[in-house]
Amino acid sequence: MPQQRPFMIGVAGGTCSGKTTVSERLAELAGDDALALIKLDSYYVALSHLPLEERAKFNYDHPDAFDWHLLNDHLDMLAKGEPVPVPIYDFTIYDRTPNVRMLHSARIVVVEGILVLWEPTLRERFDLKLYLDTDADLRFIRRLQRDVAERGRTPDSIIAQYLETVRPSHEQFIEPSKRYADVILPRGGLNEPAIDVLRARIRELAVFE
Amino acid sequence: MPQQRPFMIGVAGGTCSGKTTVSERLAELAGDDALALIKLDSYYVALSHLPLEERAKFNYDHPDAFDWHLLNDHLDMLAKGEPVPVPIYDFTIYDRTPNVRMLHSARIVVVEGILVLWEPTLRERFDLKLYLDTDADLRFIRRLQRDVAERGRTPDSIIAQYLETVRPSHEQFIEPSKRYADVILPRGGLNEPAIDVLRARIRELAVFE
Repeated sequence: MPQQRPFMIGVAGGTCSGKTTVSERLAELAGDDALALIKLDSYYVALSHLPLEERAKFNYDHPDAFDWHLLNDHLDMLAKGEPVPVPIYDFTIYDRTPNVRMLHSARIVVVEGILVLWEPTLRERFDLKLYLDTDADLRFIRRLQRDVAERGRTPDSIIAQYLETVRPSHEQFIEPSKRYADVILPRGGLNEPAIDVLRARIRELAVFE
Repeated sequence: MPQQRPFMIGVAGGTCSGKTTVSERLAELAGDDALALIKLDSYYVALSHLPLEERAKFNYDHPDAFDWHLLNDHLDMLAKGEPVPVPIYDFTIYDRTPNVRMLHSARIVVVEGILVLWEPTLRERFDLKLYLDTDADLRFIRRLQRDVAERGRTPDSIIAQYLETVRPSHEQFIEPSKRYADVILPRGGLNEPAIDVLRARIRELAVFE
């Protein structure tokens, strides 16, 4: 019996727009057997060749920060029903670890990340393209709260990074990629009516198709 | 057995954004027994008191053009499971006809029209708020083609009406109401991945809930 090609969903949006919340809620609903969730954050390029100080200054919101080639190879494999070794990135040392996480293919593959609608080869794979359009001030506030609480950073350093790299990349790459979305979700992960709609589609794909 | 309150969906968007196409496709899918479709256009105020010449100059895109009171009364009745007499409006004489169309309530009630997310009483009824966000130039081109072909109007008169009333009302009332949407659909009726998502939710509501 020929393997059915997975239904591929791209979930894009700015920093702290709710991509993870929405993707994980859909993944939980469908279960691992029906939905494979892959995060762009796992595909940061290895920065082993740079001194730690340089790594900290790197623009993590720029397209050059990601290994698109490897991600596309992995999606080719998932499309064929093959498992893939997803890199495990260590944010504390800004580098890939030697470890990987084996991810099995599934009826639905969700690819989540700030630039997944920006990169053309990736974008063309998606059967459904979502963009989480949360207001910039709310996204910044969430990022501030998260980075203070979870990463022990100072408000000043968070603001500096936001103004130097996060915001310019948003304006230049992320926001324009909304143009390609099929469905735009305001208010990110806190939008229950929208999540109910997506859930219905996921359930239909997982159960009936 | 107590009657289940209908699930109410509002479908807003500018002129020629694809509201009718999307609403009718969903209505067709669900069938009359499961989905009652009500159009804001049926609720234009009666202009019998004005001479025909005045009626032609009326701003049909302004909130004052609609009988919100009657529409809200009708939605109260549909919510209680009662049928409603939907007015039949005659666009050639810019007036209500003496006839009505009886509409029966259903599991799903869809209210479609340019200002359905603008009017607060109406807006608060909706369990799901959709906004069709089609680009303004494409909407104008469709309106031009439609009004020339179906209403025998000249391009000059269409442009004049568009600039004098349609566009200012869009900027002032319709576009800002996008703010309230739960789901924003670009490209209107031509967006199959988005329609598939809505269809799944409609099917789920009609069949399972």
